[in-house]
Amino acid sequence: MDVSIVGATGYTGIELVKILSGHAGVNLTCLTTRQKDPMPLRHFAHFLSKYSKLELQTFNFSEVAAKSDVVFLALPHTEAVTFGEKFYKRGKIVIDLSADFRLKNPALYKKWYNFEHGSRGLLKHAVYGLPEYYKAAIARTDLIANPGCYPTAVLLGVAPLLESKLIETDHIVADCKSGVSGAGRKVTKATQFYEVDEDFKAYKVLAHQHSPEIEQVASGIAGKKAQFTFVPHLLPIKRGILATIYVKLKSKVTEKKVFDTFYKKYAEEPFVRVLPKGSFPAIKDVAYTNFCDIGIAVDTKAKKAVIVTAIDNLLKGASGQAVQNMNIRTGFPEETGLV
Amino acid sequence: MDVSIVGATGYTGIELVKILSGHAGVNLTCLTTRQKDPMPLRHFAHFLSKYSKLELQTFNFSEVAAKSDVVFLALPHTEAVTFGEKFYKRGKIVIDLSADFRLKNPALYKKWYNFEHGSRGLLKHAVYGLPEYYKAAIARTDLIANPGCYPTAVLLGVAPLLESKLIETDHIVADCKSGVSGAGRKVTKATQFYEVDEDFKAYKVLAHQHSPEIEQVASGIAGKKAQFTFVPHLLPIKRGILATIYVKLKSKVTEKKVFDTFYKKYAEEPFVRVLPKGSFPAIKDVAYTNFCDIGIAVDTKAKKAVIVTAIDNLLKGASGQAVQNMNIRTGFPEETGLV
Amino acid sequence: MDVSIVGATGYTGIELVKILSGHAGVNLTCLTTRQKDPMPLRHFAHFLSKYSKLELQTFNFSEVAAKSDVVFLALPHTEAVTFGEKFYKRGKIVIDLSADFRLKNPALYKKWYNFEHGSRGLLKHAVYGLPEYYKAAIARTDLIANPGCYPTAVLLGVAPLLESKLIETDHIVADCKSGVSGAGRKVTKATQFYEVDEDFKAYKVLAHQHSPEIEQVASGIAGKKAQFTFVPHLLPIKRGILATIYVKLKSKVTEKKVFDTFYKKYAEEPFVRVLPKGSFPAIKDVAYTNFCDIGIAVDTKAKKAVIVTAIDNLLKGASGQAVQNMNIRTGFPEETGLV
Amino acid sequence: MDVSIVGATGYTGIELVKILSGHAGVNLTCLTTRQKDPMPLRHFAHFLSKYSKLELQTFNFSEVAAKSDVVFLALPHTEAVTFGEKFYKRGKIVIDLSADFRLKNPALYKKWYNFEHGSRGLLKHAVYGLPEYYKAAIARTDLIANPGCYPTAVLLGVAPLLESKLIETDHIVADCKSGVSGAGRKVTKATQFYEVDEDFKAYKVLAHQHSPEIEQVASGIAGKKAQFTFVPHLLPIKRGILATIYVKLKSKVTEKKVFDTFYKKYAEEPFVRVLPKGSFPAIKDVAYTNFCDIGIAVDTKAKKAVIVTAIDNLLKGASGQAVQNMNIRTGFPEETGLV
Repeated sequence: MDVSIVGATGYTGIELVKILSGHAGVNLTCLTTRQKDPMPLRHFAHFLSKYSKLELQTFNFSEVAAKSDVVFLALPHTEAVTFGEKFYKRGKIVIDLSADFRLKNPALYKKWYNFEHGSRGLLKHAVYGLPEYYKAAIARTDLIANPGCYPTAVLLGVAPLLESKLIETDHIVADCKSGVSGAGRKVTKATQFYEVDEDFKAYKVLAHQHSPEIEQVASGIAGKKAQFTFVPHLLPIKRGILATIYVKLKSKVTEKKVFDTFYKKYAEEPFVRVLPKGSFPAIKDVAYTNFCDIGIAVDTKAKKAVIVTAIDNLLKGASGQAVQNMNIRTGFPEETGLV
Repeated sequence: MDVSIVGATGYTGIELVKILSGHAGVNLTCLTTRQKDPMPLRHFAHFLSKYSKLELQTFNFSEVAAKSDVVFLALPHTEAVTFGEKFYKRGKIVIDLSADFRLKNPALYKKWYNFEHGSRGLLKHAVYGLPEYYKAAIARTDLIANPGCYPTAVLLGVAPLLESKLIETDHIVADCKSGVSGAGRKVTKATQFYEVDEDFKAYKVLAHQHSPEIEQVASGIAGKKAQFTFVPHLLPIKRGILATIYVKLKSKVTEKKVFDTFYKKYAEEPFVRVLPKGSFPAIKDVAYTNFCDIGIAVDTKAKKAVIVTAIDNLLKGASGQAVQNMNIRTGFPEETGLV
Repeated sequence: MDVSIVGATGYTGIELVKILSGHAGVNLTCLTTRQKDPMPLRHFAHFLSKYSKLELQTFNFSEVAAKSDVVFLALPHTEAVTFGEKFYKRGKIVIDLSADFRLKNPALYKKWYNFEHGSRGLLKHAVYGLPEYYKAAIARTDLIANPGCYPTAVLLGVAPLLESKLIETDHIVADCKSGVSGAGRKVTKATQFYEVDEDFKAYKVLAHQHSPEIEQVASGIAGKKAQFTFVPHLLPIKRGILATIYVKLKSKVTEKKVFDTFYKKYAEEPFVRVLPKGSFPAIKDVAYTNFCDIGIAVDTKAKKAVIVTAIDNLLKGASGQAVQNMNIRTGFPEETGLV
Repeated sequence: MDVSIVGATGYTGIELVKILSGHAGVNLTCLTTRQKDPMPLRHFAHFLSKYSKLELQTFNFSEVAAKSDVVFLALPHTEAVTFGEKFYKRGKIVIDLSADFRLKNPALYKKWYNFEHGSRGLLKHAVYGLPEYYKAAIARTDLIANPGCYPTAVLLGVAPLLESKLIETDHIVADCKSGVSGAGRKVTKATQFYEVDEDFKAYKVLAHQHSPEIEQVASGIAGKKAQFTFVPHLLPIKRGILATIYVKLKSKVTEKKVFDTFYKKYAEEPFVRVLPKGSFPAIKDVAYTNFCDIGIAVDTKAKKAVIVTAIDNLLKGASGQAVQNMNIRTGFPEETGLV
């Protein structure tokens, strides 16, 4: 199977190269960059063999289209709209890691991403690539909108309770913490070592663009409007997200019912691990893996529960999940190439 | 004024030495340790002058009592009960940095700290040393229960809203994150560099001993039972706490009302800084200072607000606040010796 | 091929599990621990599939011997002597990650490791497992003494110049810096996060036990006594070693000669990468890989050169190199299972 | 005494504000910046009191000259030449933290800093501000060239041996490691958190601009040409330098002689601490202080010694030493305002 990566030098692009160069069923054809001077990819991706022949090349639509069965788009938001549509219309399987096909309501792009979406018709064909909830649809679509990192961490923690109607939907708190790779490769003052090291802070409080994505998917699963208070924070680490989610339980929901709901939901899911009572996830246990670990605490007297989830934002929160989706769509076992 | 520190070699003890050795009105007399071999303190506290004559000495009650007007107790929890009572009865001003005099209900010590409190009569005389709320009482007492680090960060963020009755009290979420010095100096596997670095995790979920302290003080200020969901997390940094607090606003509470309440409450408080709308605190801006920075976001449509506070857990969350209390009690200007 | 790991829960043991569980030609049979309560290894090695059947078990010599073609010993120094000899005499291929079979002169164990070596006869049969220098011997031996982490970093940087007799051998400086995993899993005050974070220091100055190992191997390659000044330092990172080596060039040695010597020596070695002039290695480029990167600066006027090498101390400095040696010994392509 | 800081918002400028705002004899008058929008300095320097009236202002030569007895220049290299000369000619005491007046040979500026020095006449009047060696001259000059951070760390470690003629001068190795604040406040890819965290590397190998400064001063103290091999490295910490210096002892130099030389040299120096045999400095013990700690190891058999020094690059390596120089020049006790 011929696979290309458009945008192979960002953090998520590099992770895709890492996974796919070790994937038995994949032939990496085009690895593109906007940089002017293509070069052996091993000068950039130091984990590659010193004899690797993989080359970076300047992006050329026709060439990529001609040489690919599957195209991963690892582009900045807004740039994926155009090329996503073009590759899709050429009959390619498109897996887009940006937000450009995640939201169903085009108006939300104007509000949260500040651009007019140019492929509105395509939005309804795109399938949200959260395998634990949409596996069957992922297996049949040619346009997969790979979920955002925060939404993956939040949804995997709260969706089982929404789906089973065990919690109130009007005031869910999602307090999230992410390593700096979540901000991408752009060089900024805010991501300088001297600014981040030994620091911790909230950012985009009540104003992060992942809010509508979380609410759209959660509401779909709940069958009714689910409202979140979502605050992201910046951790002084390279990678990983931990989400602490606070929910109110409906009357008569027992601790056992909550745990059983999670155990049952994820029993057959290879990348979601529900921890036993009293255990909570740590970012270091999921870093460099495609796992999502989930810990649960229930206070039945106060009718509340706390769900803690952890993922690697570059893997289960981006490139790992993208390959998981590719495996599902193309018939490989779901875990192929992934740790 | 003669001042002693009982337990001068823990993290909070060392910070007390740092502050008080630069305090114009203080004569440090006894600096005690349980270690067998007393030595020049400068071998332990490397910020001291190479010519410093300060010596560590083995603890001796009579000597400390004879040589002190003020005694700081920087001991592990449960050890402060006995000596706190003894120094108090000798007429000393006692400032206890442990939890041993913070809770009013003795039964809570059994539940949360697993010991029977032996000085129950004294609990009602102790004053909770949160200057922004109890300054007058602090100025008159000889037994100051210095607040816990998490309670300081949470209470400074939520108390103005409770005092002004602007929020619901039945479901306040306090998601807190602390650097490792919060765990004290004990050598443990959990605080090894390899375990903490590049990691982040929740701990003691719904089970941390600061919960009853927060609820006791918050309820007192609110004039009714205030219920918190409190989850602490461990940050891969040396010092600092950031608390993100989620509250529900009562009907008709405006954004302006919320901000004005904070501005007014803390206008005259030298160590609390309320940030303008759109700004949020960072641990690095309060580390190595006695400040508490507060940021506020209000969503009037959803009737909710998020309050973010940041302190240095060893200063405003422990030793800095302890000296602030000493200043108030002994008549020095509140900022003396503190940055 | 049946492979066991004796000591599977230390840092190097866990890395062996990680590599070997993905090695196509290996069947992991016994994974032993001194801990009393065996358990599914996935509870300890979080990168394993949630369905992994691998189990930790208490060490039992007969069982391990019966079930293994190859035995990796990842034990503390001194413990490997006894079991190394026993497995060797039972005809197993033994790959020892401790120092117990690295030194040829038994007296050095008394001096540097403070114990009397009990298998002196075996020392001369052991082959030093540095593949770039002893590949043929490794392929034929049943007792491989896997090199220390610092010696690997230093020797790969200086040996080409010693072998080619381009440098003076009487005063080589090796200034080395290691992440904390080099200290192993033992819980100590010195490796607490609060002690290591934002710190850096030298330790065991002129007194580290890797000195005689470096000098023994370097002298062997040079064909004459090579003398080193070796100072290790502790970096506030999890893994990785960077060695900066200062040598004096013999007269008339040109910059081109130095570079050509390195290029030629390592051209066919899959895990050593010699960087072009002006480039120097970074730990992050070799972390989580089995590579050794080498950068070179030459000052022909002053007749000196600086060689900088970087490795992952747990991989090329321990477990990765051990598997590389296993591959060589058992006929697998050298890179099998390794990145 | 009226004091101004030209360039108050860089790392060294902010440290100067921190020290001088707590210096009893100093009245801070002008704090200048190139930024267009002056503002209360407390918005930038978060350690200042919330009531601080200090204001940043746009630089204006006449105003600064009119309002200052002492002017600190915390400008990028090359910019200090012009203004240093102008303030000097107006009779101000100028303390320049850049390299612009450190080198005596103007040709070196062209070679190492790539600019033609425009105030060559002034270079011979400038006094190198290393108090432990040039105190008397510092007390009399109006132009102090404050030493570089690396030169301070290296010279304090090696100068006693050069001055006493105990070591060979032809091949001194100075392996130095610095935290990222050494690179200044400029936003670069190389200083992004994701690049620096968990990494370590050498840079400017044999090519750093502090080489000629070290050799000039060391040669002056030795009374003959002293040659250094100097390699700087980047540590994943905010602040601090550790220098490991390798020297060859002359014949018959004993360990006692080496230690005594250091003890005697620095006995009266308040900011240099020579550690006892077997102890070595740690960056964390000097961070946030003006101290230089020194550890020594001697191998008399091999006739070599290792000297390890540690400083805070922003304090003893920059702003702290600058204030120490000001105190010496203006008659304050040397330690005033410094920890």
